[in-house]
Amino acid sequence: MDKVRFGIIGLGSQGLYYASELFGKGIINNGVLSAVCDVDVAKTDILKKRMDTAGIRFFSDYTEMLDSGCVDAVLVESPHYLHPPTAVECLKRDIHVICEKPAGVYTGQVREMNEAAAESGALFTMMFNQRTISSYKRMREIIGSGGIGRLQRFTWIVTNWFRTQSYYQGGGWRATWAGEGGGVLINQCPHQLDLLQWVLGSMPVSVRAVCDYGKWHDIEVEDDVTAFLRFENGATGVFIASTGEAPGTNRFEVSGSGGKLLCENDSLKYFKNKVDSLEFSKTCERGFAAPECELVFEETGASGPQHAFIINNMADAVLGLEPLFIDGREGIKGVELMNAMELSGWKDGAEIRLPVDEEEYLEHLNIRRAASRFDPSAKSRVEDTSGAFGGVKLG
Amino acid sequence: MDKVRFGIIGLGSQGLYYASELFGKGIINNGVLSAVCDVDVAKTDILKKRMDTAGIRFFSDYTEMLDSGCVDAVLVESPHYLHPPTAVECLKRDIHVICEKPAGVYTGQVREMNEAAAESGALFTMMFNQRTISSYKRMREIIGSGGIGRLQRFTWIVTNWFRTQSYYQGGGWRATWAGEGGGVLINQCPHQLDLLQWVLGSMPVSVRAVCDYGKWHDIEVEDDVTAFLRFENGATGVFIASTGEAPGTNRFEVSGSGGKLLCENDSLKYFKNKVDSLEFSKTCERGFAAPECELVFEETGASGPQHAFIINNMADAVLGLEPLFIDGREGIKGVELMNAMELSGWKDGAEIRLPVDEEEYLEHLNIRRAASRFDPSAKSRVEDTSGAFGGVKLG
Repeated sequence: MDKVRFGIIGLGSQGLYYASELFGKGIINNGVLSAVCDVDVAKTDILKKRMDTAGIRFFSDYTEMLDSGCVDAVLVESPHYLHPPTAVECLKRDIHVICEKPAGVYTGQVREMNEAAAESGALFTMMFNQRTISSYKRMREIIGSGGIGRLQRFTWIVTNWFRTQSYYQGGGWRATWAGEGGGVLINQCPHQLDLLQWVLGSMPVSVRAVCDYGKWHDIEVEDDVTAFLRFENGATGVFIASTGEAPGTNRFEVSGSGGKLLCENDSLKYFKNKVDSLEFSKTCERGFAAPECELVFEETGASGPQHAFIINNMADAVLGLEPLFIDGREGIKGVELMNAMELSGWKDGAEIRLPVDEEEYLEHLNIRRAASRFDPSAKSRVEDTSGAFGGVKLG
Repeated sequence: MDKVRFGIIGLGSQGLYYASELFGKGIINNGVLSAVCDVDVAKTDILKKRMDTAGIRFFSDYTEMLDSGCVDAVLVESPHYLHPPTAVECLKRDIHVICEKPAGVYTGQVREMNEAAAESGALFTMMFNQRTISSYKRMREIIGSGGIGRLQRFTWIVTNWFRTQSYYQGGGWRATWAGEGGGVLINQCPHQLDLLQWVLGSMPVSVRAVCDYGKWHDIEVEDDVTAFLRFENGATGVFIASTGEAPGTNRFEVSGSGGKLLCENDSLKYFKNKVDSLEFSKTCERGFAAPECELVFEETGASGPQHAFIINNMADAVLGLEPLFIDGREGIKGVELMNAMELSGWKDGAEIRLPVDEEEYLEHLNIRRAASRFDPSAKSRVEDTSGAFGGVKLG
């Protein structure tokens, strides 16, 4: 195999972006786009306007594409509910999968996908492109190596996801329980929910959340969330997300007994205590003293190779040139966090212990799906997503 | 009356500071210190070492001081539980009162103080010196005049109250339910809890909180709090406080449909939208667009005349030269917030509607007072409080 032959399932904004901006511009070194699939054949016209589609086969049924023999790997860009079943079909055929975030809508379906991945001979990864951003990588390294001592608190304000009402009218599936499975948590925040546990190096043991539904927009799902997390070691954290505020904030602060990391927009600051603050507290004889602290570094201009990296990595991994950067099965963690926040919101802020009860979650979700205003017949609009990915610029 | 004659009840760190640093250095223009009172007569020796005490009478019983005829106004610097009953004794005698924060430990006793103030011929104010800080004044003015449109959210991280274990051993009353009535909320945060409602211009309708008790120190009260507030118009907010983190953060962000205010350390930034974001959301035809926004100003070096202003204002108000800056009865608002957070913490994060049920609160508090490790016989240590007032430098 010279180059890995990729297929894209789902030509929404994201699928079209990968096709025309990454494959179309030769950014995927060891991969070529050999097929695309969308139930809406009009999408192929949009693609043809954006790039030279010579050599690309078009399908409207993705299993036909998988069975055609013309793809080695697939980018799953279908609606959220379909990510797991679509990925499972690929994995069963030993076709490698890059699954778009979120891994799924509820953990039960993601677990099934993970089981299929474990049994498959194919590679499986998640499009967690924000894991390639230097600030988050540095934070993870510093925390993982004990650079801020014992974890005490995180606060992540992610309110820079402003969306207009028009955005929500761009697709019948958008912001509906039956079509999308949630709001800001499932659509805008999968990156942050993944990064949260990846950067901190652990999942919380419990979650409480207050979710407001259709607070800033005429939608049925949540567009404003405040969540409180507790970790095994007692550390706590707050996660705040909204699509109704402008100008928003993207500020992720993590504090520990050894210091503090502050990531705001594209800047990362690392403050380090000369002595551990909890040790200092026990031994210092003055009441108002605090340990000496230094700013170890401030880095600005955080960036990363983003989506292109994830696709290049898959191609290279298939060719045996490098290991997979992300084990796709980790996608369940962000879905777990999202499910815990939604469930707590539905249960008036009750404390939800992790892992979330799969059946209880699905039961609550299904009540909302049954009453959903989702219109399966509504056509999706393709959005100009330039500058739309919240906070950190895409590479 | 040429100059208003002040008495100080309680020569702890704060009482000594007012005596020697403000009165002793002639900073109170229209006031003189004519008497001080402390049950611990050894405190008078400390005062004598710090200032010339000629003309100052010493008392160990504050009612004797009030009845001596040598004071027109009093600074109430006793332990928290005693603020209301002490102030009531002053007000009953038509002696003007500057009450140290907090106004009291529970709203029931503060309500009684407020009733005494309403019936008294004397003036009554609270030592809310942080209301004199320019940043907070500007924030209140901008929000009050509609400068950020409809209030949507606040986030106030106040984790720069680091205290060592030694601090908590400096007085038998400290950080005990029976001696002090609470932890970080009642000792360190009364300023922020007052400023919160003063800056925003309204009280929340409900509060939820998670409080951790003795998390970072060997104490019985809370030293780590995360609270969630909801306002009448649907706006929400998070208030985070700790005495166990270093380096801490003091960052107060308030966002609305018209823009955002960001007060961090001694800097204030005001971002203003060219059009209201909620209006923009309804009318814009693009999904990913956001209203244009400008940084109207960034002010640094926030400062204020602080404690000296409050005492000078009282002297001038007594002399009829200016109105009182703060109606002391407003002190109940911060106590209400604190009580709501404590009660929610005790009730496992339950939503507490305001106003807090006075009787329910006292019942819960009394259970903790009965089991408290408070040692009334322990002597208090006088602390060097330089640089201890968290975040904003004192003037």
